Amino acid sequence: MNSPTAQAPATFNDPEPIDVVHVGLGPIGRQVLAFMSGRERYRSAGGADINPALVGLPLNEILGERVVADDARVVETIEELGQAKPGAVAVHCAGSSLERVAPSLRALIEAGFHTVSTCEELSDPWRTQPKLAAELDAAARAADVVVLGTGVNPGYSMDYLPVVLAASQRSVRAVNVHRVQDAGLRRLPLQRKVGAGITVDEFTQRVHEGTIRHMGLGESAWLIDRALNLGCTDVVETIDPVVAEVPVPLGDGTIEPGRVLGIDQLVLGKRDGATVIRLHLQMAVGLADPRDVVALDGEPGLETVTRGLHGDSATAAVVVNSLGRVRTAPPGLRTVDEIPASPLNL
Amino acid sequence: MNSPTAQAPATFNDPEPIDVVHVGLGPIGRQVLAFMSGRERYRSAGGADINPALVGLPLNEILGERVVADDARVVETIEELGQAKPGAVAVHCAGSSLERVAPSLRALIEAGFHTVSTCEELSDPWRTQPKLAAELDAAARAADVVVLGTGVNPGYSMDYLPVVLAASQRSVRAVNVHRVQDAGLRRLPLQRKVGAGITVDEFTQRVHEGTIRHMGLGESAWLIDRALNLGCTDVVETIDPVVAEVPVPLGDGTIEPGRVLGIDQLVLGKRDGATVIRLHLQMAVGLADPRDVVALDGEPGLETVTRGLHGDSATAAVVVNSLGRVRTAPPGLRTVDEIPASPLNL
Repeated sequence: MNSPTAQAPATFNDPEPIDVVHVGLGPIGRQVLAFMSGRERYRSAGGADINPALVGLPLNEILGERVVADDARVVETIEELGQAKPGAVAVHCAGSSLERVAPSLRALIEAGFHTVSTCEELSDPWRTQPKLAAELDAAARAADVVVLGTGVNPGYSMDYLPVVLAASQRSVRAVNVHRVQDAGLRRLPLQRKVGAGITVDEFTQRVHEGTIRHMGLGESAWLIDRALNLGCTDVVETIDPVVAEVPVPLGDGTIEPGRVLGIDQLVLGKRDGATVIRLHLQMAVGLADPRDVVALDGEPGLETVTRGLHGDSATAAVVVNSLGRVRTAPPGLRTVDEIPASPLNL
Repeated sequence: MNSPTAQAPATFNDPEPIDVVHVGLGPIGRQVLAFMSGRERYRSAGGADINPALVGLPLNEILGERVVADDARVVETIEELGQAKPGAVAVHCAGSSLERVAPSLRALIEAGFHTVSTCEELSDPWRTQPKLAAELDAAARAADVVVLGTGVNPGYSMDYLPVVLAASQRSVRAVNVHRVQDAGLRRLPLQRKVGAGITVDEFTQRVHEGTIRHMGLGESAWLIDRALNLGCTDVVETIDPVVAEVPVPLGDGTIEPGRVLGIDQLVLGKRDGATVIRLHLQMAVGLADPRDVVALDGEPGLETVTRGLHGDSATAAVVVNSLGRVRTAPPGLRTVDEIPASPLNL
């Protein structure tokens, strides 16, 4: 952490920009890259993506606008990015499954990068994947770097925000979060991910296969549980379809009645059978009044309604706003309750 | 900061409770003392108050219930509390004016206590009282302790919360906060402080004398300014009465039409004439729908409405929830954007 002074904080006088490398240049990775352009403290120094169409391109060409130094280009592997300069941070937007992205995280740690990742399962893997969490934590400590999984959800709206709000309470008995997102306003891959337009049978089948599911909701529950000492013994999840009752427009077409609009996902954190955490996520085309509601059952209790936490944009913002504190936190695998995003240009 | 592990965080296994001393045992200090009873990590080890009626009393007798070890008693001066045990924290609820409480803060620093204070002007004195801020910062660093000014307002609802919410934004152009509190639900000293029941002339006179004013609002503006890099060049404040239009019940009596119900206070943070921060506080008897609204004008922008941030109770909660991180933060005078309150039993 930087110390405030009566004049400007020391960071603003620091002349050397910090290197940021962009690992994974899909929709979210690109949005992070675009958001970086306003941050003078940082320099997008390179990118890595397995997509052959991107390898060799200047970062500028990917966005179609000049946002970074001309010499920054996309390479194929993390190894080609070379050893990290002191304090350099990798933005890692390469997948939701921790097991699948673990090799790239290991490579970034080994190369000496602090890493901010949008991998949903990295947001709090201590209970869900304890062995992998402990391994990454040990590697990060050994390499003297910080690894953080974050984004808007998980990472902010359904976990960090309730924890922040709980600080105003004498005690909290139970946490109730309801996030409503209009998938019609989101990018196409997300609409596909929530099953927009498919039949209910296909939805059921794909839930069974594990290809329709918002990832990270269980991790959010465990994060809240640990941060608030709620004593969860079990976290259970159900996924149901939101079904069209009338024709719902989407892009150039229409989703007919009876077809799926999106997901209705519920995660319950239980302590000896009693529900102490309830995370309810609805992401579907055409949902009215997108919002985030946090209700704390506590002493004295509280309810907060937020409008404007858009998924993609807020994820990129939270990632960019996490770069500063990631560089100065104690090394290891960290969680958002330990390293809050800060808009300060740290 | 403590590192999470797959098992319980290390702090929970730490056998020695941390000493907390309570300096100032007025309404807020007492509420903090009461809230401490649920925190096994801490031990209320003593109190200090200049009120002769309290000196010598066991802490338990002050609350009329057994909350602390029998031997903890109230002394008159900070010096009588003795040298702090390692990691001990002082809760300091002794006044709003930094200049007036500075001697007691110096004494606590000198005795080696980390200090969490509800002194409103301590919440961010870097711009408003830079010399005193720098002096306290240097003293705290030299003594290897942390000093933090916090509470619900300033410290949470009108500064920390907007900063937290801003982390979800690509950029923030302006911050708009509106806090509405029904003073009829608050303690009597607060009702007096906002002028409930007096005439408009008396109100104007007392504003002029400086005895009617919610303190800390300017500090909140400077904190937001620094945390979000808004580039404020000036902060201006106005205070108007909220006047009864119909008879308004209060306690056993009534406030007649034409009399004052409370304050309507506005702080504007200006950058070269343009308003980039607007903090609007209404605290008056009978105000409908008490709430905290944070609206961020930014990319993409956001609005949050919170109901339940009650002044006294939330201040005590924020203070108690700040004890953990105050003990582990880098030494010096700190602000709530650096040391967020955490409900974790750290």
